[in-house]
Amino acid sequence: MTNATTNELTIDAPEGVPWIDYTREFDAPVAAVFDAHRDPDLVRQWLGPNGHEMGIEGWDFATGGSYRYTHRSDGAEYGFHGLFHTIRDDELVIQTFEFEGMPDEVAIEFLWFDDLGDGRCRLRGRSVGRTVEGRDAMVASGMERGMREGYERLEALVGSAPTAPAGAGGGAS
Amino acid sequence: MTNATTNELTIDAPEGVPWIDYTREFDAPVAAVFDAHRDPDLVRQWLGPNGHEMGIEGWDFATGGSYRYTHRSDGAEYGFHGLFHTIRDDELVIQTFEFEGMPDEVAIEFLWFDDLGDGRCRLRGRSVGRTVEGRDAMVASGMERGMREGYERLEALVGSAPTAPAGAGGGAS
Repeated sequence: MTNATTNELTIDAPEGVPWIDYTREFDAPVAAVFDAHRDPDLVRQWLGPNGHEMGIEGWDFATGGSYRYTHRSDGAEYGFHGLFHTIRDDELVIQTFEFEGMPDEVAIEFLWFDDLGDGRCRLRGRSVGRTVEGRDAMVASGMERGMREGYERLEALVGSAPTAPAGAGGGAS
Repeated sequence: MTNATTNELTIDAPEGVPWIDYTREFDAPVAAVFDAHRDPDLVRQWLGPNGHEMGIEGWDFATGGSYRYTHRSDGAEYGFHGLFHTIRDDELVIQTFEFEGMPDEVAIEFLWFDDLGDGRCRLRGRSVGRTVEGRDAMVASGMERGMREGYERLEALVGSAPTAPAGAGGGAS
């Protein structure tokens, strides 16, 4: 079932804890959404807010691998890096995450990929920071907008509406 | 000043958050205590509770490196592994930590090494888990005893009392 209205990003940052929970569904197979996290040529096209140029300096998407990327806009450059603690295809990513503008404030991020059947899937994320204050600063920095815009571009990339086979009239005839 | 009575492990696990804070001082130079974290031949001699045999299967103590070790006692074996996100000599370690008996419950750990002068130092740690419940389970598992015993062995290893130079009579004459 295609129902774009259910594909809203939901963010929950409960008071007094250092984590952020988020979830979003996609009208795309779980393998396609996972691949858009694995392949740096795809990642570059969707990760982060609109209007930034993304540069990927390293993307070793494997258990034990590392990554670093930058976002540039209006002459400013922001760097991010981390390590992939666990990669389980089409299922789970556990990684560290450091925004280099807040050195040593490293978060650990869990990202589950749920196959919903019918060519749909759900991302569920938890990002756990070192402190509640750091988590609050992340939320205040406009993180939600960046995630929302990024996931909208991801959905466009992996195909927001399943394409009917050429000549198909629809229906289960 | 040597004052062994101040070298107690202090653990703080506040209600409702997923972290554990701990601190302990050592009558040893910060470089010696840091080295006992870097060198697997030293780590093997102190990490973990008494009465376990420690096996180190990997110990790439460098930014981006990985580790895995096991503790064996009474025929049971417990595995632990993670990645070193940041290593700053004599100053800071940030690493992931997974007890393989609780797969995917990965914590991020911060360990600061403070030089106190006079050949003494202080370790300050924060271990942040994915959930409050997981943190509580860690505390209930006897983690505190294991840490306490481990740090006592570490103190013995690095020299709990600074050795006076041969023939020195003490004093600042």
